[in-house]
Amino acid sequence: MSESIDFYFDFSSPYGYLASERIEHLAEQCAHRVRWRPILLGAVFKKTGERPLASIPLVDAYTPYDLARCSREHAIDYQHPTRFPLATVAACRGYYWIQAQHPDHDSAYVHSVLRAYFCDGLAIDDAAVLADLVQSLGVPSDEFLTGIQSNAVRTDTRRATDEAIERGVFGSPMMYVGDQCFFGNDRLEQLSHWLTSGGW
Amino acid sequence: MSESIDFYFDFSSPYGYLASERIEHLAEQCAHRVRWRPILLGAVFKKTGERPLASIPLVDAYTPYDLARCSREHAIDYQHPTRFPLATVAACRGYYWIQAQHPDHDSAYVHSVLRAYFCDGLAIDDAAVLADLVQSLGVPSDEFLTGIQSNAVRTDTRRATDEAIERGVFGSPMMYVGDQCFFGNDRLEQLSHWLTSGGW
Repeated sequence: MSESIDFYFDFSSPYGYLASERIEHLAEQCAHRVRWRPILLGAVFKKTGERPLASIPLVDAYTPYDLARCSREHAIDYQHPTRFPLATVAACRGYYWIQAQHPDHDSAYVHSVLRAYFCDGLAIDDAAVLADLVQSLGVPSDEFLTGIQSNAVRTDTRRATDEAIERGVFGSPMMYVGDQCFFGNDRLEQLSHWLTSGGW
Repeated sequence: MSESIDFYFDFSSPYGYLASERIEHLAEQCAHRVRWRPILLGAVFKKTGERPLASIPLVDAYTPYDLARCSREHAIDYQHPTRFPLATVAACRGYYWIQAQHPDHDSAYVHSVLRAYFCDGLAIDDAAVLADLVQSLGVPSDEFLTGIQSNAVRTDTRRATDEAIERGVFGSPMMYVGDQCFFGNDRLEQLSHWLTSGGW
């Protein structure tokens, strides 16, 4: 199996969403595969003392303009959500349930949830909204709603976030290839260069 | 006179340094000129609650790797300073004295001070070090040392920083063209695109 790009992100991260729309194509071109690693950025911020962009004075005013330009640069559909950020624990648990029970749907789940939030403005903190998305992927929504309450999925979610912090993740998106890490949607080109050139 | 790109930066900002090495060429290609606006990022952080990169857990470990890659990407000489960050009030006052007294040397001063810190590891928080740099530009160092103590220069430095905060500056580098602003060394391409296309 090809080597993986570990793609750490939070489901409420706009730059994570933008990068998620390009990372698989980039990986394919570099003969790698994407290993999705959704995490809870709130737990990361407890470690770093940082805050969501929307909570930082002056940064909050700038970010929507930057996101509009970054999405236009790569022709990615983007509508800044009116509720931003929101809790992503249900979305994150949902991912680890899908990964365990329906692994072939893991990428589709990631894109479905991110697009629901960043294109359609849906309330992805609501398990019922997630269940509808999952149903449209062909996965029974009742199984999903039960599954995301399981201890196993809670443990997987916590473990993924702990592992991310242990590895050095401080934001979203953050991409690892071996011990080399790249932070931000604006580092995809450097990541690609790294993979194709075998270093710099 | 051509329109200006207002280039806000702190003399201890590595990404500000990297951008300073490319912004004039970019401006020239877009028929603009660079208006250097050194500021004191410490005062900005008091407004935003943010901290220098070197003070944020996990971010501090990542930043030197990112800087190494970003400098290599554009073939810019860069040596991460051992003393980082350091106080830039003398360097900043020095700029506003040069701008008032020897305006033809303003760009040379900016590059000289930034390269002294980020290529040669000099202590640019030391007025004597700055005076030597200024002397090598052909400006009498004793005039400089007296000048940077003047009330006018202190006022200009404070005013530049206050004006930056008022305008929305939260980091370094941050570039304004009219009311459009771009944050970070990694937004120079978007800035260039904006200037050449008249928008997006």
